[in-house]
Amino acid sequence: MSVQDKAAAPVRYAAALFPWAGPGDRFLRAGYRPGLPVAERIRRAAGLGVLDGVEIVYPAEVTAETAVEVGRCLRDSGLALCSLGTSITSQPQFGRGALTARDPAVRREAVSRVKSGLDICGELGGDRIFFFLGQDGCDYPLEVDYQDAWGWMIEGLQEIAAHRSDIQICLEYKPNEPRRHIFLSNAGTALHLVTSVGQPHVGVLFDTGHAFMAQENLGESVFLLAQAERLFHVHFNDNYGKWDDDMVVGSIHLMPFVEAVYWLKRVGYDGWRSLDLFPFREDPDVAVLQSIRFIQRVDTLIDEIGMDTMADLIRQNDGAIATRELSLRLLGVV
Amino acid sequence: MSVQDKAAAPVRYAAALFPWAGPGDRFLRAGYRPGLPVAERIRRAAGLGVLDGVEIVYPAEVTAETAVEVGRCLRDSGLALCSLGTSITSQPQFGRGALTARDPAVRREAVSRVKSGLDICGELGGDRIFFFLGQDGCDYPLEVDYQDAWGWMIEGLQEIAAHRSDIQICLEYKPNEPRRHIFLSNAGTALHLVTSVGQPHVGVLFDTGHAFMAQENLGESVFLLAQAERLFHVHFNDNYGKWDDDMVVGSIHLMPFVEAVYWLKRVGYDGWRSLDLFPFREDPDVAVLQSIRFIQRVDTLIDEIGMDTMADLIRQNDGAIATRELSLRLLGVV
Amino acid sequence: MSVQDKAAAPVRYAAALFPWAGPGDRFLRAGYRPGLPVAERIRRAAGLGVLDGVEIVYPAEVTAETAVEVGRCLRDSGLALCSLGTSITSQPQFGRGALTARDPAVRREAVSRVKSGLDICGELGGDRIFFFLGQDGCDYPLEVDYQDAWGWMIEGLQEIAAHRSDIQICLEYKPNEPRRHIFLSNAGTALHLVTSVGQPHVGVLFDTGHAFMAQENLGESVFLLAQAERLFHVHFNDNYGKWDDDMVVGSIHLMPFVEAVYWLKRVGYDGWRSLDLFPFREDPDVAVLQSIRFIQRVDTLIDEIGMDTMADLIRQNDGAIATRELSLRLLGVV
Amino acid sequence: MSVQDKAAAPVRYAAALFPWAGPGDRFLRAGYRPGLPVAERIRRAAGLGVLDGVEIVYPAEVTAETAVEVGRCLRDSGLALCSLGTSITSQPQFGRGALTARDPAVRREAVSRVKSGLDICGELGGDRIFFFLGQDGCDYPLEVDYQDAWGWMIEGLQEIAAHRSDIQICLEYKPNEPRRHIFLSNAGTALHLVTSVGQPHVGVLFDTGHAFMAQENLGESVFLLAQAERLFHVHFNDNYGKWDDDMVVGSIHLMPFVEAVYWLKRVGYDGWRSLDLFPFREDPDVAVLQSIRFIQRVDTLIDEIGMDTMADLIRQNDGAIATRELSLRLLGVV
Repeated sequence: MSVQDKAAAPVRYAAALFPWAGPGDRFLRAGYRPGLPVAERIRRAAGLGVLDGVEIVYPAEVTAETAVEVGRCLRDSGLALCSLGTSITSQPQFGRGALTARDPAVRREAVSRVKSGLDICGELGGDRIFFFLGQDGCDYPLEVDYQDAWGWMIEGLQEIAAHRSDIQICLEYKPNEPRRHIFLSNAGTALHLVTSVGQPHVGVLFDTGHAFMAQENLGESVFLLAQAERLFHVHFNDNYGKWDDDMVVGSIHLMPFVEAVYWLKRVGYDGWRSLDLFPFREDPDVAVLQSIRFIQRVDTLIDEIGMDTMADLIRQNDGAIATRELSLRLLGVV
Repeated sequence: MSVQDKAAAPVRYAAALFPWAGPGDRFLRAGYRPGLPVAERIRRAAGLGVLDGVEIVYPAEVTAETAVEVGRCLRDSGLALCSLGTSITSQPQFGRGALTARDPAVRREAVSRVKSGLDICGELGGDRIFFFLGQDGCDYPLEVDYQDAWGWMIEGLQEIAAHRSDIQICLEYKPNEPRRHIFLSNAGTALHLVTSVGQPHVGVLFDTGHAFMAQENLGESVFLLAQAERLFHVHFNDNYGKWDDDMVVGSIHLMPFVEAVYWLKRVGYDGWRSLDLFPFREDPDVAVLQSIRFIQRVDTLIDEIGMDTMADLIRQNDGAIATRELSLRLLGVV
Repeated sequence: MSVQDKAAAPVRYAAALFPWAGPGDRFLRAGYRPGLPVAERIRRAAGLGVLDGVEIVYPAEVTAETAVEVGRCLRDSGLALCSLGTSITSQPQFGRGALTARDPAVRREAVSRVKSGLDICGELGGDRIFFFLGQDGCDYPLEVDYQDAWGWMIEGLQEIAAHRSDIQICLEYKPNEPRRHIFLSNAGTALHLVTSVGQPHVGVLFDTGHAFMAQENLGESVFLLAQAERLFHVHFNDNYGKWDDDMVVGSIHLMPFVEAVYWLKRVGYDGWRSLDLFPFREDPDVAVLQSIRFIQRVDTLIDEIGMDTMADLIRQNDGAIATRELSLRLLGVV
Repeated sequence: MSVQDKAAAPVRYAAALFPWAGPGDRFLRAGYRPGLPVAERIRRAAGLGVLDGVEIVYPAEVTAETAVEVGRCLRDSGLALCSLGTSITSQPQFGRGALTARDPAVRREAVSRVKSGLDICGELGGDRIFFFLGQDGCDYPLEVDYQDAWGWMIEGLQEIAAHRSDIQICLEYKPNEPRRHIFLSNAGTALHLVTSVGQPHVGVLFDTGHAFMAQENLGESVFLLAQAERLFHVHFNDNYGKWDDDMVVGSIHLMPFVEAVYWLKRVGYDGWRSLDLFPFREDPDVAVLQSIRFIQRVDTLIDEIGMDTMADLIRQNDGAIATRELSLRLLGVV
């Protein structure tokens, strides 16, 4: 057991830039509103006054060619590079799989891209990349040879990990979308994968919305990943529990987020709390700002109560009592 | 359009007595703790000091033989009979259907039972019964002749409605459980059914947890049922959106309950706000008390903001802004 | 009751052209493969040799300017226009609602577009249009004034219906996507809406995949819509029950499709059986061809058994027996 | 990689006795029909003529006192003991947890019970027990200290494993029910748990219905568990993908079962294929018999096609083609 109560870790907030990128979907591929240039996205994020860093996506938002310029934007904005997303999900050549594509050339290209991402991350002064294996899955029964696919996935990750060990590699799990089934689907599978890869700098990105989709209890997944020393990065967002809606934090769920923040503090998580939001039709500034405020309010609440009192409360082992105690304070009834 | 802003309706709170009845399930049919006698259940409910009424179930909690005694308990407790549940779901003879059983004798018995329930309700001074057609559905494809079943369901309800018109008949919809599929599955189907029955005293019981299961927006269902003048009764409880967990209100969801309470006020609903909770393993008193407090806090919040300001907020048509405005106040950030 | 056993209706098969249009999604907006020109899509559909008609979408696949040319393609291919899709979901101006947008100019444009669609449909010799109100919904609680929205939706449909009555108007329901919640969400809500519109040529498009999403029993929804004389059009596709995967028919589900085809025959449905498939990564020809073959096989099976025997089987009211009887024959065990 | 094509393993079929036990649920705790005595359940199972073994549950169906008698019934029936279920889910003292109860006396009793089950299994000549940690989970956020709970779960299993190593211990995962959230929720979590326990005779029971609930691809989970040498036992049943409906195999899903059987053969699984069905309202004999026939038909189909051809088919990596090839043969179209 490696989890223990630690001294309060510094808390840093970040956000991905999707809210200002003009998101679209299957029905409106042109996007719900025009996207802003990357430099402007960074300025908007910085302008909110609550963020310490941002996530940048390679190659959509930064490439080897634009790294110097993006780095300057970051310095000008006062924001750190929280993490570099190295996308191998959003390019047509990876549409039938990236690390697990049957075509070895495609697999090589995917590995190569992530290695380039590692280097760009280093160049930008970052210390972690993340990626989502969204096309590495299947749609139909009997469409994939799982033995091949899992073997290639592990090999690819080992090759990526061997490229350099000074940057953390964070794997983001999610049950589905864009694939109807994604191999790296939930916290348990993620633990199995990173254990199989067997490199200390390959860990897991925990996304609260993906955990809701996977029917997980947020606090339990935080605990299990941290206990295995694999909780490397955290994304916050909300949804209806069924699909990756990427909504404002606290717009749907209440107590599950209190549990999530409590366990992040309990396991001594000292990484970033980053937002992965897709406000297709909403004011992007409000969506980001309100999400941070909500998490901060929950964090403060737990501090007010105190970690020892929280632990005592949980050990009463009664959900109605836990709800009452937190809710009374959160809603200002006492 | 019959919905309009009305003068504030009086708000009355009630609860079903299941929390004190020793609930069990498929795996623990004996129950998670012993149930209390009915008189004691009523005393416990009254003792909380926040309820104006209770729901009593016929025949599990009251029969023709015990009606006088139960009536006395109610008067002694100072609680009103909010509604009488007339169960045709929990008896072996109705296991393959009650109003829609293929055996006409079973259908007759089901109708007869509900009529008896109407009379007991009247005797107890009540003005509404409700029932849940939980066995009137199917488990497998090609198991039911829907033409027969829907015909019998409508006929049975018409016969029940003809028995007496001075008591409201409230039909509770839910997508599934105990049946894998229940005919009366959601708000739209409920509107179709009560329109087909065509009696002004046959309406709908809206249960927030069942609405989550049916993927409804709570406020929209409240509006649609009220607009059709069929919103007769309301149950509050919470769940994870997938199954009828009957949990403490506000333990999982936040803003959906704010929307529900807003629309209950908006449509001028002047009936009961009753709890349908199954705290299998939790303190029943805390579960009920905390649920009422949560709803009351939301109600007060909306009053503080004011109905006009709420309407303006909604008409901004931006979910991030709506979340911010409500959340800031609810969580005491402003 | 208007449903009765009718003489066998002629069966006609059709497909939407999406399989050849290069579908994309949120993660791969550029599309998983290049789309073909519309004329080529039609030729590919015709080349399969199993289709009697196709669905064409206005304005993505045909406009007033190209109507003559598309009409010629159809005649050359020997395919009928099964139905014209008049999209008011896939344009940025409708991203926050079409018939229910708060901006009256947007609502007028949406109505105007559908009217133009009606005229193009007539020009092409079609007799029905369909549309999906995918942006007419909401994402967040307290984002929409449901009273305004439902009022506008009904008014808009009445205005559209008044434009001409010689063409059927088919409304497609679905619980969500692109909106997290769509107003026209399931069969019950659809019945409520078309009843509120009150025009005999405004009915419902039943999509098997959307019915799975809405947790409906396919046969029951077919029956309810047909009984109300509103079953105007049918889409077939398969999914995992959770999201609109638009997969090959019979790839996931078995007996639910047998039930659906049985009830289409039972209610004497004489419209089209059309496919709405999105084979993002699969061979589009195989996806369409195999789906039609599956439906045809189920249809033949029911004919072999006979409608009277099927009715007797269903009235045994035992899902295990129904499964056995159909499965034994379908899988060739007897 | 330890998975490889093996020589065809002998196939043995079994069933749990629930179909003849008079199952009940939350709404009808008395049961949908009377249960038969255990001896009669065994005779009914044997009478079907398709089973090689049965599962017996301790203490509900056999105890130390009745072990001799039950053993005689088994010998008389010609059925083997496929596996002994050692229930620590269905007794009131375990209602708030068995291996993870906060009360150490309850945890000790749970461990002690499973040890007794191991001995009874040995006495009956069995070689594996299974159990389901259905109460070891939670209902509410902040109700459980996950660090304590996971620690106790692992310790308890290690203590059980130490009792004797000649009998396999199979752990059954499921996302929820009776708990709203079960710790041992899916295949990935199960791998994590058995790896943490670290005993070669502690493995996993794979239940097809639970895998559907957990949004798994059946074949992938079979592969992952087998690759880790932890696929110890298999339960078949069907459902709608949302809840543990325990329905007749093949009544809802088609191709997912073909995939499951293919991968069981591919990984050389030589254990039992057992049924876990709850035909609440259906003929129990038909439910069991039809489920076995369905699996056998799928098995035969794969043999007809041949494992090499199947592998080639899968490596085409196109779900529409896979569906076509299997479906054409399965439905007798070719």
